[in-house]
Amino acid sequence: MTIADRWLLPDGMEEVLPPQARQIEVLRRELLDLFHTWGYDLVFPPPAEYLESLLTGSGNDLDLQTFKITDQLTGRLMGIAADITPQVARMDAHSMQRQGAARFCYCANVLRTKSGNMLGSRSPMQVGAELFGHDGVESDSEILGLMLSALGTAGAEKVYLDIGHVGIYRALISEAGLTDDQEKQLFDAILHKAYAEIDQIVVRDIANESLQGMISRLSRLNGDASVLVRARAELADAPASVLTALDNIEQTVRIIQEQYHNVEINFDLAELRGFNYHTGMVFAAYIPGYGHPVAQGGRYDETGKVFGRARPATGFSADLKILSRLLQDNDPVSGVLAPAGFSDDEELLCTVRALRSEGTRVVYAMPGQDISASEMGCDSELVRKDDGQWVVEPINRIF
Amino acid sequence: MTIADRWLLPDGMEEVLPPQARQIEVLRRELLDLFHTWGYDLVFPPPAEYLESLLTGSGNDLDLQTFKITDQLTGRLMGIAADITPQVARMDAHSMQRQGAARFCYCANVLRTKSGNMLGSRSPMQVGAELFGHDGVESDSEILGLMLSALGTAGAEKVYLDIGHVGIYRALISEAGLTDDQEKQLFDAILHKAYAEIDQIVVRDIANESLQGMISRLSRLNGDASVLVRARAELADAPASVLTALDNIEQTVRIIQEQYHNVEINFDLAELRGFNYHTGMVFAAYIPGYGHPVAQGGRYDETGKVFGRARPATGFSADLKILSRLLQDNDPVSGVLAPAGFSDDEELLCTVRALRSEGTRVVYAMPGQDISASEMGCDSELVRKDDGQWVVEPINRIF
Repeated sequence: MTIADRWLLPDGMEEVLPPQARQIEVLRRELLDLFHTWGYDLVFPPPAEYLESLLTGSGNDLDLQTFKITDQLTGRLMGIAADITPQVARMDAHSMQRQGAARFCYCANVLRTKSGNMLGSRSPMQVGAELFGHDGVESDSEILGLMLSALGTAGAEKVYLDIGHVGIYRALISEAGLTDDQEKQLFDAILHKAYAEIDQIVVRDIANESLQGMISRLSRLNGDASVLVRARAELADAPASVLTALDNIEQTVRIIQEQYHNVEINFDLAELRGFNYHTGMVFAAYIPGYGHPVAQGGRYDETGKVFGRARPATGFSADLKILSRLLQDNDPVSGVLAPAGFSDDEELLCTVRALRSEGTRVVYAMPGQDISASEMGCDSELVRKDDGQWVVEPINRIF
Repeated sequence: MTIADRWLLPDGMEEVLPPQARQIEVLRRELLDLFHTWGYDLVFPPPAEYLESLLTGSGNDLDLQTFKITDQLTGRLMGIAADITPQVARMDAHSMQRQGAARFCYCANVLRTKSGNMLGSRSPMQVGAELFGHDGVESDSEILGLMLSALGTAGAEKVYLDIGHVGIYRALISEAGLTDDQEKQLFDAILHKAYAEIDQIVVRDIANESLQGMISRLSRLNGDASVLVRARAELADAPASVLTALDNIEQTVRIIQEQYHNVEINFDLAELRGFNYHTGMVFAAYIPGYGHPVAQGGRYDETGKVFGRARPATGFSADLKILSRLLQDNDPVSGVLAPAGFSDDEELLCTVRALRSEGTRVVYAMPGQDISASEMGCDSELVRKDDGQWVVEPINRIF
């Protein structure tokens, strides 16, 4: 084991150093305060839980993402939280037991066995908000609005929003009479927007010709607001729930567009991200210059069921570290250097106490060290005047 | 798997619900702000690292406390952080490379395989501060002062401080010529203050009579400030480093007592807590009504060495959840209820935006739900006047 080996951090397990850490902390507070003013109550989920609590209802993807550890007290398997949302759903279903709408927010480290993208983090700081107990335009638009407000708070000037609704594909496919294998093949083709393959599969595997056409056309319903108009025409024969979904998207988007004017919306009705988990509207926010979503979320009404209480649910989350990196300016650190060797100078002690209680950063020099004030993040210093008073002066000498 | 099983949290892995979570968040900010004004720069260590980085120099205890996971990318073993201090020591030695005194603070979840005490947490929120690059009274008294200021910020009115110095026992035992087994036996006897056994072991195993007496007497050097006077007499023949240690304690305590008047100090010069890890002064803070330390720390000068840079170091840490539980009052949550069904009422939207931007918590009712405002933490509501204006009024109707 060489010294260099001991320094090495695992890929995707980042440390955050000054001044970036302070930057992240400032944004963390702004976001949690925003959530608070919207009525979202802060919770801290446990960093590890029994595996069956963590993974129920969340599908296979999260299982593969979750680090497993053995509980020495019981011998049972625990998982390190890889996503906070199912934990909050458990808290809503069991710990809180509120009857009406319940709103929760959180900011917590999660750990993942693999990152979602190359060079991505395996230890995001997940920050997010969840709204339980209501299914409809009011809750969908509130969560979407809160996400856009959060991105605005973080400094985003322009947001590109992708909106989908997994309920549409779900309604069509439930009538297609496919085997599991056939369904998986079609799902993959739609996920990758492989149009030729989609057309081939629907003709080969689906008997109902109207359904063939609708699934083919659905896979191409991707673009601006005209997509919703096309969808009403092209999916006219679909089950009623599809039309309800289109109404839901339309009304939610209208509310959002009246209140947020820096948002460009793209509709992708065949977006199947999180299909096993989501049940309704899904969305992802992009900003210029970053190829992955900076925030995302959607509706997941079934998650609470395994905990004994199925509750409608929608929410969003983001990685605080990414938001801070992309959107925050670096404020320079400032501070006042206090001299070493005056531990019994009551005047100095008082002055330092007063400065600190006003929020000023005061850093004591250590005796025998001739260190530049800039290494300590100081741009001024305490200087003793002839009358014994200490005053703050800009640093004008060379160390 | 019954539903009840899925609810169950592992022992010591707590979730924190509203309103306690908000309480903890408020204290977190106050403490990190306090550390900031003292010049301690915030860092976020990674939640998991390679095991050899996490455990070097920290001794066997931390190894047993650390959950191990396999890094799928490399096949190497990683550990979930069980103590933040060694991580910060690595950051100081390698990532930061400052030449002079360097100050860091943190607040992060840690996970432990077993709790230190019955019913204790296995997932503390460790909050603390570390000072690297200086060995002496100035840094010892600064860290001790910061710990006491932190406890004051958290609401402690009276603090009982235990002070020891592992360097004293270390200096004596290094001259005793004991085998590893003999040393371990003596160590355990002193740790448990088994005086009869201590006297027996020193006479049996140590040839030098002066040393026999000094180790016996050291084990009883426990009490108020008179202990320091007794120590000077009873350890007069000890190596010079013992007298230096006593000087260090005396000067540090004088500085602290001049500035903190709510502190009662107990000296225990045979305190061997963290002996494998600490190198100098060690301390633990107690408050009335809680049987374990609420904050503790001490000097650990050798930890950086395995990362290529041995730097003097001292620091302290506490469990934010315990501080908050013991010392914080519960503020009642307040908020303003906004009615459902007015998503296109521009007056209401403006009023809600203005209230929220001032920090007021405004919670929308969801349509079709007849839920008590108190469940939503609201004590007032937005009411529409005849002129179309919305005003906040106390809630005076029964839901």
